[in-house]
Amino acid sequence: MQVEVVTIGTELLAGEIVDTNAAWLMARFEDLGLRVHCHQTVPDEEATIAEALEVAAGRATLLVLTGGLGPTDDDRTAEAVARWAGVETVLHPEAEALVRAALARFGATVTERQLRQARLPRGARPLSNPKGTAPGFHLRRRDRDLFVLPGPPEELRPMAEAHLLPWVRARRAGAHYATEVLRCYGRGESVLSDLVAGSGIDLTGIELGWRFSFPEVLLRVRAEAETEEGARARLEEALGALEQALSPWCYARGEQSLAAVVGGLLREAERTLAFAESCTGGLLSTLVTDVPGASAYFLGAVVSYANEVKAEVLGVDASILRTHGAVSPECARAMARGARARLGADLAVAVTGIAGPSGGTKEKPVGLVHFALADAEGVVHKRRIFPGDRAQVRRAAAYFGLDLVRRRLTGRLEVRG
Amino acid sequence: MQVEVVTIGTELLAGEIVDTNAAWLMARFEDLGLRVHCHQTVPDEEATIAEALEVAAGRATLLVLTGGLGPTDDDRTAEAVARWAGVETVLHPEAEALVRAALARFGATVTERQLRQARLPRGARPLSNPKGTAPGFHLRRRDRDLFVLPGPPEELRPMAEAHLLPWVRARRAGAHYATEVLRCYGRGESVLSDLVAGSGIDLTGIELGWRFSFPEVLLRVRAEAETEEGARARLEEALGALEQALSPWCYARGEQSLAAVVGGLLREAERTLAFAESCTGGLLSTLVTDVPGASAYFLGAVVSYANEVKAEVLGVDASILRTHGAVSPECARAMARGARARLGADLAVAVTGIAGPSGGTKEKPVGLVHFALADAEGVVHKRRIFPGDRAQVRRAAAYFGLDLVRRRLTGRLEVRG
Repeated sequence: MQVEVVTIGTELLAGEIVDTNAAWLMARFEDLGLRVHCHQTVPDEEATIAEALEVAAGRATLLVLTGGLGPTDDDRTAEAVARWAGVETVLHPEAEALVRAALARFGATVTERQLRQARLPRGARPLSNPKGTAPGFHLRRRDRDLFVLPGPPEELRPMAEAHLLPWVRARRAGAHYATEVLRCYGRGESVLSDLVAGSGIDLTGIELGWRFSFPEVLLRVRAEAETEEGARARLEEALGALEQALSPWCYARGEQSLAAVVGGLLREAERTLAFAESCTGGLLSTLVTDVPGASAYFLGAVVSYANEVKAEVLGVDASILRTHGAVSPECARAMARGARARLGADLAVAVTGIAGPSGGTKEKPVGLVHFALADAEGVVHKRRIFPGDRAQVRRAAAYFGLDLVRRRLTGRLEVRG
Repeated sequence: MQVEVVTIGTELLAGEIVDTNAAWLMARFEDLGLRVHCHQTVPDEEATIAEALEVAAGRATLLVLTGGLGPTDDDRTAEAVARWAGVETVLHPEAEALVRAALARFGATVTERQLRQARLPRGARPLSNPKGTAPGFHLRRRDRDLFVLPGPPEELRPMAEAHLLPWVRARRAGAHYATEVLRCYGRGESVLSDLVAGSGIDLTGIELGWRFSFPEVLLRVRAEAETEEGARARLEEALGALEQALSPWCYARGEQSLAAVVGGLLREAERTLAFAESCTGGLLSTLVTDVPGASAYFLGAVVSYANEVKAEVLGVDASILRTHGAVSPECARAMARGARARLGADLAVAVTGIAGPSGGTKEKPVGLVHFALADAEGVVHKRRIFPGDRAQVRRAAAYFGLDLVRRRLTGRLEVRG
């Protein structure tokens, strides 16, 4: 099976948007032991898309198309596929039912324009889209299989997982593969890969792929064997050894976020959490509440951007703010204690720093962040200087704050009374 | 001039590395009023590269290739170009001098392998590479111009600026282009495009491209004219008319976020802002503090995830929580009033709802969100049911909350005392 991905969208040729769909699809094929052969990006022009399909059909047997399935006039993908296939587009009854159901779900009106999305090349099999209105479709013509999926990543991904990948898996012959990702935080790729190299783990039949996903490092582990069970067993064995070698930096397998792991630890310990956020401006709370069920352990936060809020809502002493300033160990400690007391939490983490781009001085440069964690036993303070721009400093600080909770709950952080 | 970019590198088809070269080149061409027509990514295989060039030459007149020029055996680009051009590769004296000079600069030894980089298709013009050892080259064959540049971005960028872009600039004939993006919020693509269609705006010389970037809709507007000034004037005229047709849904031009626009309005009105966030869990504050300089108008927020925090920190009456529950108009109003008073802000927005996936009931389904905005004149309440998963509900609610501030400050939202 030779695979080509064709991304459709004039806006993707302007260099403004990164085509995350293509990379995501490539990684999924990689998981199945298949390397995508070629990739094209073409504009929303019927003739150009049809020609690109001709080219792709010349060098691949499975064509995955993304984009151009929406209701507006510049969405030309279905017509282009029909042109390439030598068929016409028809209002497909099953697709129409999907579009109508989606519109009902979103409480939107059924219009002629919306129903354009149900016009598919004759002979296509519609693919349901739980997150949007445009159905995808699968068409087999001229000895080629085409899977055509919408452009928005939040629609494409579940559709690829529901329709495309199982279809590919069922047709894969020969070797079997099993894949998992190990998620690490706290050390860089070069330190972590040295740890693996130095551990003497047997990596026969295992392929490792490192990737930096700021501020985390992800390790993709792929096992190959003659049977599916063999591949899974080999993978499990390798994962166990790798987790040990990467301890304590490796915090989870698969899609689990650091916030979800922290949430699990809080549930287990039956503890509640609160934050006092200054430079992260709500990001730490956002990460924690991204996790379904966070209300079981997360009480809330005070985003104390202004000094008056630090003083009046968190109870930070005016003399601390006057003498040491808001970006200081003293203020971080007082914020953590204040959040813990005011919100009635078992643990509280405070973050105060300078995210930039302005506001830095020689003594307190952009990127400087003070942290404090308070619990029943006392308080601990940490200081870091993070490199990067405003968004990077904020993200790095939020992860560091989260990791303090993980460290505390796994016995790797001492506090003082 | 029709342009195609061809990225060469097997590793780019695994989905782990983002091809920043292609996006960078596209943006540079966009600056010159040229939209790259198509883009291909192909593996380091001589035959596949040569075929991709055949395809590219069929739809473009300028081909920009990146990657595969290094000294190792899997670097096949020069051979592939020679194959496509129907010539052989030769050790090019000028290229050899460039390679030798580069090796001397880096203090490296001249080896056979290094000198491979000086073997270029016959008739090529070598392009110097100040940051690396592999020269690029320009070849004109079969009525097509090929610029072949190395893959590492730090080598490609200065080489494109020194050799490729001046060449393009000198040859730009005929039409000139000017581009801008209009950002819309509050209505979907299909309603907005109907508004444009129904407005009777003269769109001669204008190309429109719609894009959904949840929960916003972006409209890219490109004007074409015979002179640069003409294109700019045509664009300005079209933007004015489109903004009017899309009012009040169009909130900004270009890269400005909704939070930045709200920030600008607050600065202008000299007002301060605070939030009381429940289901958005800090996301509203994060969006506002993503904008540099937000401390000028944003005081902070109380993320009141637990009812106790709503009661104790925001001062929501226990009887409201008991009688109406946390997800109610009454609670939203009390949260907004409480945040405004406790944080001392001019305006406060409260958000309380059910983000899901669990916690919904028949009366209060997942997606139900109550909003309130309080200012000196009183309070206003809004209720919405957002479709989608937890992440979508949270994001939709955060944008709706932000937009309430925009509506209030632009005189489109009444409050009651």
